[in-house]
Amino acid sequence: MVAWPVRLVYTLRAMASSTPPPRPATSSREALRADYGHIRAATRGLCEPLSPEDYVVQSMPDASPAKWHLAHTSWFFETFVLSVALPGFTPHHPQYAVLFNSYYQVVGPQHPRAHRGLLTRPTVAEVMAYRSHVDDAMDRLFATLPEARFQRVAGAIELGLHHEEQHQELLLTDLSHLFAQNPLDPVYRPRAKPSEATGVPAGFTPGAAGGVVEIGATGERFSFDNEGPRHKVFVDAFELGSRLVTAGEYREFIEDRGYERADLWLSEGWSLTRSEGWRAPLYWRRDQGGWSMMTLAGRRPLAPDEPVCHVSFYEADAYARWAGARLPREEEWEVVAARSQLQGHFLEHGRFHPAPASSPPSATAPAQMFGDAWEWTASAYLPYSGFAPLPGALGEYNGKFMSGQMVLRGGSCATPQRHIRTTYRNYFPPAARWQFSGIRLAK
Amino acid sequence: MVAWPVRLVYTLRAMASSTPPPRPATSSREALRADYGHIRAATRGLCEPLSPEDYVVQSMPDASPAKWHLAHTSWFFETFVLSVALPGFTPHHPQYAVLFNSYYQVVGPQHPRAHRGLLTRPTVAEVMAYRSHVDDAMDRLFATLPEARFQRVAGAIELGLHHEEQHQELLLTDLSHLFAQNPLDPVYRPRAKPSEATGVPAGFTPGAAGGVVEIGATGERFSFDNEGPRHKVFVDAFELGSRLVTAGEYREFIEDRGYERADLWLSEGWSLTRSEGWRAPLYWRRDQGGWSMMTLAGRRPLAPDEPVCHVSFYEADAYARWAGARLPREEEWEVVAARSQLQGHFLEHGRFHPAPASSPPSATAPAQMFGDAWEWTASAYLPYSGFAPLPGALGEYNGKFMSGQMVLRGGSCATPQRHIRTTYRNYFPPAARWQFSGIRLAK
Amino acid sequence: MVAWPVRLVYTLRAMASSTPPPRPATSSREALRADYGHIRAATRGLCEPLSPEDYVVQSMPDASPAKWHLAHTSWFFETFVLSVALPGFTPHHPQYAVLFNSYYQVVGPQHPRAHRGLLTRPTVAEVMAYRSHVDDAMDRLFATLPEARFQRVAGAIELGLHHEEQHQELLLTDLSHLFAQNPLDPVYRPRAKPSEATGVPAGFTPGAAGGVVEIGATGERFSFDNEGPRHKVFVDAFELGSRLVTAGEYREFIEDRGYERADLWLSEGWSLTRSEGWRAPLYWRRDQGGWSMMTLAGRRPLAPDEPVCHVSFYEADAYARWAGARLPREEEWEVVAARSQLQGHFLEHGRFHPAPASSPPSATAPAQMFGDAWEWTASAYLPYSGFAPLPGALGEYNGKFMSGQMVLRGGSCATPQRHIRTTYRNYFPPAARWQFSGIRLAK
Amino acid sequence: MVAWPVRLVYTLRAMASSTPPPRPATSSREALRADYGHIRAATRGLCEPLSPEDYVVQSMPDASPAKWHLAHTSWFFETFVLSVALPGFTPHHPQYAVLFNSYYQVVGPQHPRAHRGLLTRPTVAEVMAYRSHVDDAMDRLFATLPEARFQRVAGAIELGLHHEEQHQELLLTDLSHLFAQNPLDPVYRPRAKPSEATGVPAGFTPGAAGGVVEIGATGERFSFDNEGPRHKVFVDAFELGSRLVTAGEYREFIEDRGYERADLWLSEGWSLTRSEGWRAPLYWRRDQGGWSMMTLAGRRPLAPDEPVCHVSFYEADAYARWAGARLPREEEWEVVAARSQLQGHFLEHGRFHPAPASSPPSATAPAQMFGDAWEWTASAYLPYSGFAPLPGALGEYNGKFMSGQMVLRGGSCATPQRHIRTTYRNYFPPAARWQFSGIRLAK
Repeated sequence: MVAWPVRLVYTLRAMASSTPPPRPATSSREALRADYGHIRAATRGLCEPLSPEDYVVQSMPDASPAKWHLAHTSWFFETFVLSVALPGFTPHHPQYAVLFNSYYQVVGPQHPRAHRGLLTRPTVAEVMAYRSHVDDAMDRLFATLPEARFQRVAGAIELGLHHEEQHQELLLTDLSHLFAQNPLDPVYRPRAKPSEATGVPAGFTPGAAGGVVEIGATGERFSFDNEGPRHKVFVDAFELGSRLVTAGEYREFIEDRGYERADLWLSEGWSLTRSEGWRAPLYWRRDQGGWSMMTLAGRRPLAPDEPVCHVSFYEADAYARWAGARLPREEEWEVVAARSQLQGHFLEHGRFHPAPASSPPSATAPAQMFGDAWEWTASAYLPYSGFAPLPGALGEYNGKFMSGQMVLRGGSCATPQRHIRTTYRNYFPPAARWQFSGIRLAK
Repeated sequence: MVAWPVRLVYTLRAMASSTPPPRPATSSREALRADYGHIRAATRGLCEPLSPEDYVVQSMPDASPAKWHLAHTSWFFETFVLSVALPGFTPHHPQYAVLFNSYYQVVGPQHPRAHRGLLTRPTVAEVMAYRSHVDDAMDRLFATLPEARFQRVAGAIELGLHHEEQHQELLLTDLSHLFAQNPLDPVYRPRAKPSEATGVPAGFTPGAAGGVVEIGATGERFSFDNEGPRHKVFVDAFELGSRLVTAGEYREFIEDRGYERADLWLSEGWSLTRSEGWRAPLYWRRDQGGWSMMTLAGRRPLAPDEPVCHVSFYEADAYARWAGARLPREEEWEVVAARSQLQGHFLEHGRFHPAPASSPPSATAPAQMFGDAWEWTASAYLPYSGFAPLPGALGEYNGKFMSGQMVLRGGSCATPQRHIRTTYRNYFPPAARWQFSGIRLAK
Repeated sequence: MVAWPVRLVYTLRAMASSTPPPRPATSSREALRADYGHIRAATRGLCEPLSPEDYVVQSMPDASPAKWHLAHTSWFFETFVLSVALPGFTPHHPQYAVLFNSYYQVVGPQHPRAHRGLLTRPTVAEVMAYRSHVDDAMDRLFATLPEARFQRVAGAIELGLHHEEQHQELLLTDLSHLFAQNPLDPVYRPRAKPSEATGVPAGFTPGAAGGVVEIGATGERFSFDNEGPRHKVFVDAFELGSRLVTAGEYREFIEDRGYERADLWLSEGWSLTRSEGWRAPLYWRRDQGGWSMMTLAGRRPLAPDEPVCHVSFYEADAYARWAGARLPREEEWEVVAARSQLQGHFLEHGRFHPAPASSPPSATAPAQMFGDAWEWTASAYLPYSGFAPLPGALGEYNGKFMSGQMVLRGGSCATPQRHIRTTYRNYFPPAARWQFSGIRLAK
Repeated sequence: MVAWPVRLVYTLRAMASSTPPPRPATSSREALRADYGHIRAATRGLCEPLSPEDYVVQSMPDASPAKWHLAHTSWFFETFVLSVALPGFTPHHPQYAVLFNSYYQVVGPQHPRAHRGLLTRPTVAEVMAYRSHVDDAMDRLFATLPEARFQRVAGAIELGLHHEEQHQELLLTDLSHLFAQNPLDPVYRPRAKPSEATGVPAGFTPGAAGGVVEIGATGERFSFDNEGPRHKVFVDAFELGSRLVTAGEYREFIEDRGYERADLWLSEGWSLTRSEGWRAPLYWRRDQGGWSMMTLAGRRPLAPDEPVCHVSFYEADAYARWAGARLPREEEWEVVAARSQLQGHFLEHGRFHPAPASSPPSATAPAQMFGDAWEWTASAYLPYSGFAPLPGALGEYNGKFMSGQMVLRGGSCATPQRHIRTTYRNYFPPAARWQFSGIRLAK
């Protein structure tokens, strides 16, 4: 157990403060202030159904306790905004800088990731006080900071808000994982009513004829550094699946012995099916009453028209091979997304689970491109041609994770709607299953 | 994640119920009723300083969350007393039989030990309601059960009370371990005042001249099955250390490079010092201000006259070798204990840490034989000659752990005073350090 | 320990036999026959310096014993050629089909990879007899098989020869790893004379101006399935390092605390430096006499002008970042390689270690593009657009490994010269270090 | 990989040399010289059936390669005898002192135990040359050393011979384990003829009436330090099984679902049956033809009258509980052994497997007390009252292993006959199964 001396922590924070500011903000001061209020309140809102006990536990090293998400997002503003810009600002607690740093090596030491669940203190009440401390200071900053100084941190504030939205999603997926370990099948929020079968048939939608296309963010509106720069890629002619693969279709793959046929699998995936005993998506269970699955609304029967989710990249890839197709590359997805309407089921809908496709796709735009379930792509998460990370500590935000992961696109039922965009690149290790990760075919 | 069907659980409980009763109780119905009230209330009392978050976390597989201790001790009465004897008794929740079974294979399946910390539900409030449900039913049982039926379960009630006392101690040692993982150094209960140096010198007290002695429980008053039967052993002449080894003495061992000298250690112990990085007792830390240690009163400097505790058997054994002595065998300890006064610092004193020896030993009885710190012995935990476990499921209470562990004697500052006795055999794996385990020399 | 019944093995082989033939061979029957003789003899030649003991041990799960390489390459011809085509052919031993199958799930069960080193039998002599059995039968097949039937397996023979060449390289790299575990620093072959310093300066060579280019194999001459199809990609303007990074340059990175600066590393790479204690390339050691390294010629001092090798992708990537550059993408490398001369130091040179750049690069072609050391690229090993694996069991040759690995290009000092080509895609996990893997910069 | 500087090794050897001599020898110079010749030759004889490949591999961390046994036993004489006493003696190779030190911390560093199988060099021929070097020097020592100097090392020579006998047994049990990993079922030495059924019935023989007895070595003839001192213990009245438990009896335990009944097992044993999948003794396999077992004569059917062997302490203990009995304590065994004839099947018989009881037990002495199979006792391996280890480095021979192990008695079919005696205490961890360890009941 290491307790970092207070002096060191201050030195490190000073170092973080001296790093150059990230990109300028793309929103006005007023818009940022309003967003700050809404987004921070939304995070608290997500916690309302929780009892204090639910905030504490870390159900696996990849997940974090709810309490940690609440504190870490506040730490972000404290470290990259308030400590840098607000005169007279005092951090809430000298050791929080270590306890709630996630992975910013440049900023200083971190409490070990896998030990986040050992901290019963600070209590939830104390973490909420920490949030209030930060919110009050941010309020002061919005109200009083001279414009020139404000502009030096406006980009960090904007980044902090998008960061908080990411943690809203993680808070829910981590909670799902926690509740799924409990034989009592706890309910986060009961479901209003079951999904209705909509019967939108499978099929393919033409993607592009082939040739040089442009993808990536231009930087005119907010984007993460990993979305840029905008650049050219060559794509061959392709088609995209007209909607997400459904739970019913995936069940056919299982019943056709998909988990027993080595020829359908990448070698690493096959090994995982053996070593981990994977025989269905995470949270699915087959018992006498047939297939059920654990959701944030508790355990319930499989709904065949809902998109399958909680599959790994390996399962998505094996399913695609079984179906005589493949997964889309991220540039293929983006080309089609760019001409699609940004609509779907997001966090704000309060479903917390993907919904069946509600209307047939158009001739040019497949259904369910956004929201509902993240779509595994065939693309490894690598820097775009010309990629440059943010300067300073915030350069660790994305770039250093560019190995060993696959890109997912489109957002999910746990993603805030304003958070998603056509160029958005999410990424997870290919074995990850606890996100709302689903499948779209391509060929 | 396995959810056991309700039917199975009931079948298993029925099986448990059909097992023959354990030994008859050694206390009267009235005494048991009074004890039940005091002991159950004492358990709740120990939890008063906790916030809800503190009840949930399992800081290592060997430890359990406070909430689990509270529920498991209630499960014991529900399973072995109420389900067996109280007409019309309904278990509080159909799945608790699995969730809160510790290790009774015969009774049925168990929630995996290492996953006890994943259960944020039932909440603390729900567990307290479970306790009340059981307490109410026990009240009814004491008040209404015909005597003949009562006698069938009186032995199980008595056992359940001693069982609950064991968990009072574990609740505290597990909480110590949890708080010690937290860089914020949480305080369970602040200390009234520092230990005073008493300066009782080290030395040895004659033990016995050598010959055949008798040890073990006669069964006249309550004892665990592993304490009997009373039987003969041959002991050579020996002496016992006149008091427990102190933290100051142990610090000398460290400063004399005790952790760097392979020749002082058993081979397994030496390996652990290398693989685990042991260089001091658990919870000790050396920084610029010197040695400090984490206690239930928070972090504080070492008090040299306090007994050393939180050492493994290997450390106790290496220390003894360094000191030119050895650890006592359990029969040696018991022979001397049998002529000593049963006094010392126990749970009721509220110190939650061993105290310095307060008065010099007498010519025949060493100081600190009871309470303060458990004393590692040189004896492996094995069945006594003639040992027979309790019949039925309760036969799993002690007997099946008779391999790979060492015997400790005498109780600690976290043991209820009425729980300890001369013949009491505690046992832990030789690498265990999170109990209040200390050292007495012999030669 | 599982022993597969003989009947099952035959059934499985029959199944393998019934799979469609791979692509037609690109060489004539006479050329294949001559190649077969040379390549098989070359494999044996590589073993001449070995004592019987050296053939047996598996020094890590990723490596295989020399004996296994000798047998497995024979198993390949037995399974995919002789059993399919040669009338009256009897496999040498009924259980070798299991023992020496590497990873072909479709062909049948495999002896567990990590247990290859537990087989002291068959002895080396027995394995050599196995090789002779197969060579004799292949001789018969070349001499007697009617042309039409020959053509059905000619593609498999050609593949088998390239397969054997791959194992020649692995035999050497696995042996390097084995000898490097031995404090006696065994010598495979003494070095004729030390490398001479050549002083070719670092620098960059223009790659391409940017635009659509074509890469990949056309299929006119032999290539593995993963090299095709030939397809278009878009590349931005780039430059390639004029030669490989040298050991001396890499030493500067170390001395500049490259292994201590988290900001230079991908997150997974940084973790490995901590968990594995990486502070220099594999086989390097610093002691009082300075840096030395273990080679197939035994331990010797670092030669600063030799290319650095035995670095992981993570180290190559961190070095590039430290040097203000990046690693090339595989399409960039291939575009430049296509206009370069295929020359360098290969297996046939008998150096078994990369040599210093011997002549300055030309204006358009960098030095050391082929041989000496494999060059880590920034490209994940993924299927090319339009990729289709070979049909049947041989489809497992490459395709199923297309996750979690990085592409390396250009061959090494342990690669047979005829084996390498411009379109060749080698691949290893990013943490792999025991290959002759080096670094070329790009920007 | 650490290569110890030569200078350090010499320093350490010097240190070892300066340690006081162990106990005086109990044999004359002439007898020691004759024994040396016979025992060293016997070790070589055991290796005759091996091919060079068989000497190299370490099939699990607990086992060692045959080559290592050959070298380590020579290292013992080099370190504790020749370096100490023979003028002008030069160690054979400066690094062998590290490579072939097993666990003597005081003597200096050791090649890591689990890496013994990575050393293909020195070759078998080189190790044999090492043995000859040592044998020649020992010859010189026996022939030329003045008597006074000889007496200083005579005790170490005697110890070294008993040490070599221990490694003869380990060489065979380690080889058994190695061959059992090979699906080809290699044969060490074919069996002359199958065991004949002898039909000696099970039963119990009176042990002692109860009272104080004496056990342990007096030191008049050679014994290891852990066998002494002779001391008094109290035993209650007991009976011993009249012969070893047979394979046929053990098969009944299996068929009665002995491996599925938790109530029969110690808790640690039960966990191992689950985690390791134990369902029969090591080397047993059930297939369509029924039960077979792997032996040093290859795989063959179970012979029901042969003693069961290759069981762990946990299995022996569970069997005893199933049979309504218990395992004997070591003092019980020794009391009976002391009045029994020291006969049975030993290494010299060349059976390499336990034989059926050939004649009925007498009224006072059970059959098969010596040889055939080691007998697990219920006694933990602890120091006897008054135990003192040998002085100096040789004090590490036994004493430091006195935790976590159980005592076995009586020797096995792989123990040299002259090596065993009534007071002999063998010890292994309770989970060990690769020795010829069997079961005798007691009650």
